[in-house]
Amino acid sequence: MQQNSYVLTISCPDRVGIVAKVSTFLAENDCMIAEANHHADRHTGQFFMRNEITDIQMDETAFREAFSKIADEFDMKWQLTASSLKKRVLIMVSKQDHCLADLLYRWSSGEIDCEIPCVISNHLDMKGLVEWYGIPYLHIPVTPENKPQVFDEVVNWVDHYQADTIVLARYMQIIPPALCQKYPGQIINIHHSFLPSFIGAKPYHQAYERGVKLIGATCHYVTEDLDAGPIIEQDVARVSHSESAEEMVVLGKDVEKNVLARGLKYHLQDRVLVYGNKTVVFA
Amino acid sequence: MQQNSYVLTISCPDRVGIVAKVSTFLAENDCMIAEANHHADRHTGQFFMRNEITDIQMDETAFREAFSKIADEFDMKWQLTASSLKKRVLIMVSKQDHCLADLLYRWSSGEIDCEIPCVISNHLDMKGLVEWYGIPYLHIPVTPENKPQVFDEVVNWVDHYQADTIVLARYMQIIPPALCQKYPGQIINIHHSFLPSFIGAKPYHQAYERGVKLIGATCHYVTEDLDAGPIIEQDVARVSHSESAEEMVVLGKDVEKNVLARGLKYHLQDRVLVYGNKTVVFA
Amino acid sequence: MQQNSYVLTISCPDRVGIVAKVSTFLAENDCMIAEANHHADRHTGQFFMRNEITDIQMDETAFREAFSKIADEFDMKWQLTASSLKKRVLIMVSKQDHCLADLLYRWSSGEIDCEIPCVISNHLDMKGLVEWYGIPYLHIPVTPENKPQVFDEVVNWVDHYQADTIVLARYMQIIPPALCQKYPGQIINIHHSFLPSFIGAKPYHQAYERGVKLIGATCHYVTEDLDAGPIIEQDVARVSHSESAEEMVVLGKDVEKNVLARGLKYHLQDRVLVYGNKTVVFA
Amino acid sequence: MQQNSYVLTISCPDRVGIVAKVSTFLAENDCMIAEANHHADRHTGQFFMRNEITDIQMDETAFREAFSKIADEFDMKWQLTASSLKKRVLIMVSKQDHCLADLLYRWSSGEIDCEIPCVISNHLDMKGLVEWYGIPYLHIPVTPENKPQVFDEVVNWVDHYQADTIVLARYMQIIPPALCQKYPGQIINIHHSFLPSFIGAKPYHQAYERGVKLIGATCHYVTEDLDAGPIIEQDVARVSHSESAEEMVVLGKDVEKNVLARGLKYHLQDRVLVYGNKTVVFA
Repeated sequence: MQQNSYVLTISCPDRVGIVAKVSTFLAENDCMIAEANHHADRHTGQFFMRNEITDIQMDETAFREAFSKIADEFDMKWQLTASSLKKRVLIMVSKQDHCLADLLYRWSSGEIDCEIPCVISNHLDMKGLVEWYGIPYLHIPVTPENKPQVFDEVVNWVDHYQADTIVLARYMQIIPPALCQKYPGQIINIHHSFLPSFIGAKPYHQAYERGVKLIGATCHYVTEDLDAGPIIEQDVARVSHSESAEEMVVLGKDVEKNVLARGLKYHLQDRVLVYGNKTVVFA
Repeated sequence: MQQNSYVLTISCPDRVGIVAKVSTFLAENDCMIAEANHHADRHTGQFFMRNEITDIQMDETAFREAFSKIADEFDMKWQLTASSLKKRVLIMVSKQDHCLADLLYRWSSGEIDCEIPCVISNHLDMKGLVEWYGIPYLHIPVTPENKPQVFDEVVNWVDHYQADTIVLARYMQIIPPALCQKYPGQIINIHHSFLPSFIGAKPYHQAYERGVKLIGATCHYVTEDLDAGPIIEQDVARVSHSESAEEMVVLGKDVEKNVLARGLKYHLQDRVLVYGNKTVVFA
Repeated sequence: MQQNSYVLTISCPDRVGIVAKVSTFLAENDCMIAEANHHADRHTGQFFMRNEITDIQMDETAFREAFSKIADEFDMKWQLTASSLKKRVLIMVSKQDHCLADLLYRWSSGEIDCEIPCVISNHLDMKGLVEWYGIPYLHIPVTPENKPQVFDEVVNWVDHYQADTIVLARYMQIIPPALCQKYPGQIINIHHSFLPSFIGAKPYHQAYERGVKLIGATCHYVTEDLDAGPIIEQDVARVSHSESAEEMVVLGKDVEKNVLARGLKYHLQDRVLVYGNKTVVFA
Repeated sequence: MQQNSYVLTISCPDRVGIVAKVSTFLAENDCMIAEANHHADRHTGQFFMRNEITDIQMDETAFREAFSKIADEFDMKWQLTASSLKKRVLIMVSKQDHCLADLLYRWSSGEIDCEIPCVISNHLDMKGLVEWYGIPYLHIPVTPENKPQVFDEVVNWVDHYQADTIVLARYMQIIPPALCQKYPGQIINIHHSFLPSFIGAKPYHQAYERGVKLIGATCHYVTEDLDAGPIIEQDVARVSHSESAEEMVVLGKDVEKNVLARGLKYHLQDRVLVYGNKTVVFA
């Protein structure tokens, strides 16, 4: 991502002339389009667009003002994000460390491009790892009694650190509805099954019991409906009768961390547009 | 498969000495083992074994008599099948022809090694194709009223043709419980979803509604519980927001036919051992 | 594909304003864009675009005339193809029938949307199958002596049937350089290896000898360099020590036919743009 | 892996009675077989066997003495390894850290079960990471002049640490023939291409130039022939025209680390039997 580069995402009712209007606006303002994606949903008549634009000569405020006229004309929901402005991702974890370790490694190698202002956990297990990367580790234990306070505290930390994204890297606690509503399209979860199969607890054990031949993982936005939010990314791995539920857990870790990493990257690059309970992912 | 070659499958409670006993018996009778597979299920303590044996010098009856002593000693369920004795597969179809066309092609090319004594359909659409392959085509229309008689007729044809396997290659009618019980582990269905997701009708439309990123197919034995029998084989294909439900149907056809072909081959080669509601597949 | 729908493909040097110009032109002429794809190759500075446009009100000749002005301005190579005008695909085969049988089935089911004016083979084996589909079968035997005449005859048939695409569905004869030059980007081959591995004869036996753990297939345009033309599509399947070279041949058939079917569909829908020895595939 | 558990691997000319003899021996000595795999190579007439045996009551020396009689009778090459005796893996790296970081994480989580006595590198970049895991880091710079001494030093460290396996986790230096011969089947390399494609330097750039649609990685034993040793494991990932060579490098990292981790696990569990330039992998 270069200086002066932006991502412009748009969704609006489909009709003739949207691309023409937007691309003419960009050309007239000397914006180079590095990558462009469209999608017209024939079912709903909705149009989606993502433009990666470089070398904007115009001031951002001026761009926004000028573009909002087009947006009004076409009834657009739109977003302009400076690539230089990294998203701020607060990670929450419990005791399983594979997703966290993977995210931190990819982050430190530059593959995942964001700020990680802090990691919150209800356990102390990963303090050493997180602090080795120079990231503050907040230990907020959860008991059946203190759950409301815990999530009040989480909200405070989200505010404090100006986080715009929350990643549940196997956090294992159900997020209260109020939080889901407060951060729509901002809380990303990795579920250790190929949803909608095996919702809820111990999905690998459910998969083992059912005798499936593939296990999977699902990266999705969190909504009030448990494990039922918009899906960003999924993948599977082959298993057979020879794997116990415990061995499926180990095999599944690789799927989980890869699916979460891909899903998070799409989110960070503004490649995911939510509509209804589904996503358009310009991968 | 050569002359004088057999498949011996065994399941019994696990204990020391099973392999020794069986393999010594085979060696003493000069049986060459072309392929051998074992599986000990640590969860249930059950042991499974499949031996592909060639060049049996002994008479089959003598073999059975001699082996039954070992079987009794170890409390084995076992099966000895001559490779020269091809399974007899009755195929049932409705209007969708992709699975049938694929099976018939693989059968005619020798890849699927069985007899196909007849194809039964509730429609006339595939009569030409089936008869081109020289296979009798039985047209048995289904109405809400005549369903019981239809399946009585099917049983008669199964008897008449001495079929030992029934393949539902997208037959689209629910098999009555009595039939499921009459032919346990003998009726193979291809379901057009990655079970247990999207049970029942129109799974691709359900998948589209849910916004999943992979669609799949499942080959399973039919039991009284709809779409819930022991799974033999599964696979998936990647989809995105850009596929409509109708396009998923087209993409899914390739997955369905490949999964059914693999599942049927495993069944025909006695590679599938059912236990409880699960399978051991020595692929 | 609807009436009055077209595919417009463009390649030209990248600069600001191409999309704006093209999409404004389309909007001004009331063309609805059903699907649009762009690619800017940063390495070569080349820009590629594909627009699927519906409901053109304008006459095709008028469109061409008007658009050629834009094309000149941006130094574009471009192509406008009416979706109603099906491509005419001449298929050439030898003795292996899996790719041909698969193509014919997909063609008859409407999945592959083209005309197949005839099938040419140096053997008689597939005459029955081809004629069952109502397609003329031309038997042109090949000997070391008559190769030049054979390909003269092929050219005559291409002319006679006004074929625009030639598919080598396992034809097993090397195409003479003159023919490759005469039909650039028009001859599609399926090679039974994951190119550039195992160029030339008996690739599965080469793969077996080398002990690879995946076998593959490659769909590519034919050029004078044997098995080295622009790659359209590839895929692989997992193998292990337990597969003989002969079993790899059987397993590989599924990969070959799927890769060829996908590659041909991309070609038929004008989704493939060749540049240098590579392709842009707007899949 | 439990106490008193062993892996017994065998390769010998195939004939009737091998399995009977071995399994009878194991049964008579009250050895429970937790997992057994056989493979008879029809091409070469060679037989391969791996038995995971638990609860050996017998003393190891007594077992070896008793079993060697069977081994002699059948002309077996065989190996008995106590599961409690962890392999000692010396890792060599250069500047790319993704494979090393992945191995160390899997090792610390118990997924990869071995000792890692030290890491050797020609650069200092990964000292911090390695020492965080409590593993000695040996910095041995390489220049065109000092290569022979470097590898003498490596041999000394292998001896000093009693390492039995050397993993080249992207070491980027060619191993001298003498070392390859000294440690046959003990040096494991990860090559960043789907071998035998793109041997040598910069395989992703070669893949980009050739326009392939899948990139891959290969885990293999190192022999004197560069990138041509017996292959243990391979995998691929899909790419398209939209990936630059640099983006392929990033995508390829995931394939490389997963392939290396799987290959190393097979090696550590004695699941890999080398014969000629190929492997039997009882995965």
